[in-house]
Amino acid sequence: MTTPLRIALAGLGTVGSGVIRLINENGAMIAQRAGRPISIVAVSARDRARDRGVDLSPYKWVDDMGDFGSDPDIDCVVEMIGGSEGPALDLARTSLKQGKSFVTANKAMVAHHGMELADLAETKGVALKYEAAVAGGIPVIKGLRDGAAANRIERVYGILNGTSNYILTTMEKHGSAFDAVLKDAQDLGYAEADPSFDIDGVDAAHKLTILAALSFGTAIDFEGVEIAGIRNIMAADIGQAKALGYRIRLLGMARIDGGKLFQRVNPYLVPENHPLAHIDGSTNAVVAEGNFSGRLMFQGAGAGDGPTASAIVADLIDIARGDCGTVFSMPIGQMGKSARAESGNRTGKSYVRFVVTDKPGVLAEITAAMRDAQVSIESLIQTEKAEEGSVLISMVTHQSMERDVVQSLDKLSNSSSLQGAPVVMHLLSDED
Amino acid sequence: MTTPLRIALAGLGTVGSGVIRLINENGAMIAQRAGRPISIVAVSARDRARDRGVDLSPYKWVDDMGDFGSDPDIDCVVEMIGGSEGPALDLARTSLKQGKSFVTANKAMVAHHGMELADLAETKGVALKYEAAVAGGIPVIKGLRDGAAANRIERVYGILNGTSNYILTTMEKHGSAFDAVLKDAQDLGYAEADPSFDIDGVDAAHKLTILAALSFGTAIDFEGVEIAGIRNIMAADIGQAKALGYRIRLLGMARIDGGKLFQRVNPYLVPENHPLAHIDGSTNAVVAEGNFSGRLMFQGAGAGDGPTASAIVADLIDIARGDCGTVFSMPIGQMGKSARAESGNRTGKSYVRFVVTDKPGVLAEITAAMRDAQVSIESLIQTEKAEEGSVLISMVTHQSMERDVVQSLDKLSNSSSLQGAPVVMHLLSDED
Repeated sequence: MTTPLRIALAGLGTVGSGVIRLINENGAMIAQRAGRPISIVAVSARDRARDRGVDLSPYKWVDDMGDFGSDPDIDCVVEMIGGSEGPALDLARTSLKQGKSFVTANKAMVAHHGMELADLAETKGVALKYEAAVAGGIPVIKGLRDGAAANRIERVYGILNGTSNYILTTMEKHGSAFDAVLKDAQDLGYAEADPSFDIDGVDAAHKLTILAALSFGTAIDFEGVEIAGIRNIMAADIGQAKALGYRIRLLGMARIDGGKLFQRVNPYLVPENHPLAHIDGSTNAVVAEGNFSGRLMFQGAGAGDGPTASAIVADLIDIARGDCGTVFSMPIGQMGKSARAESGNRTGKSYVRFVVTDKPGVLAEITAAMRDAQVSIESLIQTEKAEEGSVLISMVTHQSMERDVVQSLDKLSNSSSLQGAPVVMHLLSDED
Repeated sequence: MTTPLRIALAGLGTVGSGVIRLINENGAMIAQRAGRPISIVAVSARDRARDRGVDLSPYKWVDDMGDFGSDPDIDCVVEMIGGSEGPALDLARTSLKQGKSFVTANKAMVAHHGMELADLAETKGVALKYEAAVAGGIPVIKGLRDGAAANRIERVYGILNGTSNYILTTMEKHGSAFDAVLKDAQDLGYAEADPSFDIDGVDAAHKLTILAALSFGTAIDFEGVEIAGIRNIMAADIGQAKALGYRIRLLGMARIDGGKLFQRVNPYLVPENHPLAHIDGSTNAVVAEGNFSGRLMFQGAGAGDGPTASAIVADLIDIARGDCGTVFSMPIGQMGKSARAESGNRTGKSYVRFVVTDKPGVLAEITAAMRDAQVSIESLIQTEKAEEGSVLISMVTHQSMERDVVQSLDKLSNSSSLQGAPVVMHLLSDED
């Protein structure tokens, strides 16, 4: 087959330019692999005049990308605008409704509207693909949908946000404070001016919901993710975790608990012998535990124009080859809708850290609250001077119900001894 | 589509039984994911009477597996016999010639006859799939063929033999000798009674050739792999590598050097900050470096009945979905045949270790031979007593042509000071 797959690019930021460069550079090889060429026929972005370092003259410029859907010369629309609503969503809807295949790098849109869009795509019999939406250049969507397809996935989890991992591992390496590392990361362009999506766990949660839907065949449920970020992690937490044989990583974690879907983004204490403990810098990694495959891990660059373009064009090659099938791992009509598992029912060890006023009786107050909530303490790791007049107290609980840990902290919430809310992190174990 | 994919199993060892257990246990979910059920209709093995812990009564027993090819009730044959020639190869040829799809876990057969079989499959328009032949349960064939398809792969390499990695990392952990660890591994069932395929690098070489063909679109060339194993690695080598910030791993390494194909299996010194340095035990890991994706790594169990069955059934799901296409990453007729790159032309740092007689002048003799061959020494790491009367000398060279290192050792080959051949390992770098 030599008919090209004719594509239109919506959005020409660094990722859009990356896709153009990739197709220019690797185009001949891609045609061999896909069985036919992939041809960019049209492009659209907000600002036509901007210099993007790539030659746009071979392509038709379209002012209103909404016109892609009705253009008979376009087979597939590639969306690289971003944002869960607005122009990206409009484009997805109109393109799919008019029978175009659709490739997107937009994790927020898939997390919020993936089910609706998948339904549209399957109704129209066209492809909707989103490899670039999760973990950048790592082919984890294909890894789960195809590579691990024979397995019941027991749980899926990983390091899904490069900015947070960069910050945590830089703090770990240099013993520096969160604020200082964040500022450096912003200066170096590794973190956004408004970093909240990254460091508060929202971006990781978007990706997690997509992985969960693929792994468990259950509808995407973004509202069901418990989300906490890394703003409250102190260098002392990292040091104390290390003394226990753990590294702190912001993980997205999803699993089915007794038929219910559990989804959480939270910093975890990861044992040093777990492969995620060795993922440093802005690298991403996804672990899938299958009932026959055992533990699989996929790692690589989680962002950047090259890796993202690599994932987008891999989707285009699938479409050009005709290897598409369902949007998730099974037809949208067969995906269930899972109830939400309550984290309170979960059992495990937790790391709890307090900043308290340096005065007599504080430790007794804390340990009494934990005793009253049936939480027993495995080790009181260290008490350390934080600033003048305040002290850090960290501990690891024995196996406890998470509900009991929360209850013990509730008991302390009005205490005049505590300076700010305690930080709670779970110890990653094989049962998590 | 509800017509099942009807499969026949050839070989009912632990892997064959694993496939039966997997399909029994995950069958309903697989039917959802594949769009239709996968049904075992016939089985064949040498010994019908043997208890395999699975119920074979639902399947037609076939004494002569050669009959699978002509059976109109079979769509796809799964080969789990092993061996590059003989019954496995006969079965592959007759099945493909008679228009059956074929799934195999047989790395040796694919390494030696993959091109012929791929040609047969593409001529007949049927699938030939071999995910289980490389790195067990890790979906690295799909990862390269589909996930990384947009990239020119710069190099592909990894830990491809679990037995060797288990031995090396156990030596690393306990400082024990090769022979002792091998014996323990044999007692525990981690190593074969005749371990030569694993520890001499042949098994890794089989897998490497398949990865190279997929990555570079060039014909499989098993004869072109330079192969060395781990028999000569001493605990002292591991300790000295560690002191330099490296871990010793048996790697398969393939890349295109100036249009020529370089393929080598050899122990390497892997820098501690490289992800392969953290792959312990029998785990496998494959790294692919793409010109847009950057470094991707896939890791998981490289062997075992569960992981292997997971890979085989993933192939069957591809076939059931109709997502097959070419056997390698492009049609067999478009794959080139690369000349072999000479390793002598390669430049890098090498670790060289001698066992010498403990007498005056030996070090002068060695260093003079290296000087004469233009090899300059970056560091003489340590000299250490091996046994009574013998001493270990290890060094790391500066960047040198590999040819020159070989030449320096040739000069020493008749020296009465050397006890056995020196061990040479390359330091893994970004240029390797």
